[in-house]
Amino acid sequence: MAGFHCLTFLTDYGLQDAFVAICHGVASQIAPGIRIIDITHMVPLGDIRRGALVLAQAVPYLPSAVHVAVVDPGVGTARRAVAVEAGGSVFVGPDNGLLSFAVAAAGGATRAVSLTNKALWRDTVPATFHGRDIFMPVAARLAAGTPLDEAGEQIAVSSIVTLPPPRWRLAGAVSGNAVAHAEVVTVDRFGNVQLSLPGAEAHRAGLTPGAAVTLAWDGRETVAPFVTAFGDVPPGELLCYRDSGDWVAIAVSGGDAAAQLGLGAGIQVTITAAAPGGTRPRW
Amino acid sequence: MAGFHCLTFLTDYGLQDAFVAICHGVASQIAPGIRIIDITHMVPLGDIRRGALVLAQAVPYLPSAVHVAVVDPGVGTARRAVAVEAGGSVFVGPDNGLLSFAVAAAGGATRAVSLTNKALWRDTVPATFHGRDIFMPVAARLAAGTPLDEAGEQIAVSSIVTLPPPRWRLAGAVSGNAVAHAEVVTVDRFGNVQLSLPGAEAHRAGLTPGAAVTLAWDGRETVAPFVTAFGDVPPGELLCYRDSGDWVAIAVSGGDAAAQLGLGAGIQVTITAAAPGGTRPRW
Amino acid sequence: MAGFHCLTFLTDYGLQDAFVAICHGVASQIAPGIRIIDITHMVPLGDIRRGALVLAQAVPYLPSAVHVAVVDPGVGTARRAVAVEAGGSVFVGPDNGLLSFAVAAAGGATRAVSLTNKALWRDTVPATFHGRDIFMPVAARLAAGTPLDEAGEQIAVSSIVTLPPPRWRLAGAVSGNAVAHAEVVTVDRFGNVQLSLPGAEAHRAGLTPGAAVTLAWDGRETVAPFVTAFGDVPPGELLCYRDSGDWVAIAVSGGDAAAQLGLGAGIQVTITAAAPGGTRPRW
Repeated sequence: MAGFHCLTFLTDYGLQDAFVAICHGVASQIAPGIRIIDITHMVPLGDIRRGALVLAQAVPYLPSAVHVAVVDPGVGTARRAVAVEAGGSVFVGPDNGLLSFAVAAAGGATRAVSLTNKALWRDTVPATFHGRDIFMPVAARLAAGTPLDEAGEQIAVSSIVTLPPPRWRLAGAVSGNAVAHAEVVTVDRFGNVQLSLPGAEAHRAGLTPGAAVTLAWDGRETVAPFVTAFGDVPPGELLCYRDSGDWVAIAVSGGDAAAQLGLGAGIQVTITAAAPGGTRPRW
Repeated sequence: MAGFHCLTFLTDYGLQDAFVAICHGVASQIAPGIRIIDITHMVPLGDIRRGALVLAQAVPYLPSAVHVAVVDPGVGTARRAVAVEAGGSVFVGPDNGLLSFAVAAAGGATRAVSLTNKALWRDTVPATFHGRDIFMPVAARLAAGTPLDEAGEQIAVSSIVTLPPPRWRLAGAVSGNAVAHAEVVTVDRFGNVQLSLPGAEAHRAGLTPGAAVTLAWDGRETVAPFVTAFGDVPPGELLCYRDSGDWVAIAVSGGDAAAQLGLGAGIQVTITAAAPGGTRPRW
Repeated sequence: MAGFHCLTFLTDYGLQDAFVAICHGVASQIAPGIRIIDITHMVPLGDIRRGALVLAQAVPYLPSAVHVAVVDPGVGTARRAVAVEAGGSVFVGPDNGLLSFAVAAAGGATRAVSLTNKALWRDTVPATFHGRDIFMPVAARLAAGTPLDEAGEQIAVSSIVTLPPPRWRLAGAVSGNAVAHAEVVTVDRFGNVQLSLPGAEAHRAGLTPGAAVTLAWDGRETVAPFVTAFGDVPPGELLCYRDSGDWVAIAVSGGDAAAQLGLGAGIQVTITAAAPGGTRPRW
């Protein structure tokens, strides 16, 4: 293995302490020329699912790299530290599901090791900062050319902890359109609400430009046009669209849809489309 | 064109999502050795004017670069995507005025193109993330040596959208000093209030060290000494000074002038100086 | 002196303005190939002590570098600007104590200069942004190979301003264990509370795995087990441990100890241990 020119880094460490810089320092001493791309360090504390989703959103656009992710409420317990090879990259982090969406997005794991070779760790390893003491030193050594197999004992890729993916289904087709049941996956800084319905399936639910989309959740209901750009509706108006990650999403043009609608991660949403100019299906 | 060693990046993407990292990933695959300087990603959502001001403040201190700026509430509408050559750098972003102050600060546009050559874009371009799909890939290719003319059709530099610059005027000279009318341009993290009056014009309004400055706005009025350093007044005291960008500014030593005075961007302020030891002009 | 490949940067500039990028721009023009590691720019405004502590926590894990730190409420006053050689690195910043903990952590100052050589500054130096105009240009030139002695007149290392280090003492040994008196040094993003008691001294206060630790402060009192990992207690429970910097610390597993206990920097805490299975010492 020739190593990697790039290392990426995602954590819930925040930006007001020195934790991120300490890890950069550790990496740059082991792999002096490495480019480090920080994905985010603002994952809500201990929110493994949010971390996994953001990592999976980023990876398709990043170079082949050693991707280090640390959202690790179980640090210092029996949970494994792992390195997983997938799609020409290596993912390093705690074996708590954090890596699972990204590994799947990269094509699935082809090899995995438990990071048991302490020769690749820092000399002394307290039980609370494995980003500095295990994940980053091992990752930097892998980037610098250490073969994956030297990082520890090989483990079955099927043994890697995976999070349940966001659920969605199409059901009860009416007038040719299915009704989509999806959940809110993430809310971004703009308040845009990403649903678990793949953009490629949108047409099966009648979500085509111009359709009137009825969104129902928690006993509430609203209607938004399905469009291709924010500018297709007046400022302040709701819209439904395929987002930049190709998921069906809800936004307010120039506004905050999540705040306006009270939508947050995990909420179930039912999506029903009426054809452009048509009437709403009865069911 | 030999390309650029540096690319800078300013957006309103925030830091909790992967948007910024995705753009870094796109750039670093096209221009592997490029240095990327993040100016800020904390521009308030959709605040084109604030983004334009911060970009213009930064550019004089940055290397020759491809400067990418994305504050783009009109993404996906008919607004153009442009690349503008000015002062040995190239500015890339939406044609909504965001680039205009920086282009002017760099000496004015010498050439401009509309980014219509889709061969330089990403393969698939949804209507909502042009930072990833158009601006950054084109910018990285320009940095890697692609000539500007290949990015699209040349357009008249006079056709580039420009924002109205912050207004100021000197008027009603009394006892040798003009009265200055200016507006609040920006408020920084420290709460320092930058006005639109150029430091080089300060003396014409009698703003010289030791002068007592009367500030009036919104029916309120206060007096501050004109000094050269925060330390020239006791902690907690108001001061008026030429700031690091050479604009007349208002601060509280060790405090937050904007919060204390209720000043924010766009508010009109009248500035009248009394000579050191002198009396306040009557008007 | 052959210079440095790395420059680190810590400030209270925040991330919403262009201040940090401007300094990166200045450095990268003087030392084009330099790696810049941002430690943090979220030091609370003017909080020299917090900045000094974060810098000292980071430095042991960073490469040999020119470390630039700017938390400088006295900018523009008579306070000196200094460069201090310690442990194979150079620390550059205001002489207000900000550098003192890191210099001590690096083994103590071996040489120091006052940055009086204006030939190494930017051409024009207003009184309010020495990060851009003095500290960063001088630091970048030192990194690029300018000898330290050229930066200004040599000064006695004993003349460098130092902050009083966090206090701690062991006293009143009862049943073989001392009672520890310490203070809260810092609170991190997780709400973990770092005390001034060195981990290496913990055993002298009876702080060994399994001990029941009584914490008393401000007339309040609570008990926590002394453990080695967060996972050693149930979620939501308090724990006492040696943290990743090897200081005795207090945390809540999956929670925020500082918020829960009302602890903040500077608060005095008394720490008394009962042996595992033993009774609490009487005193």
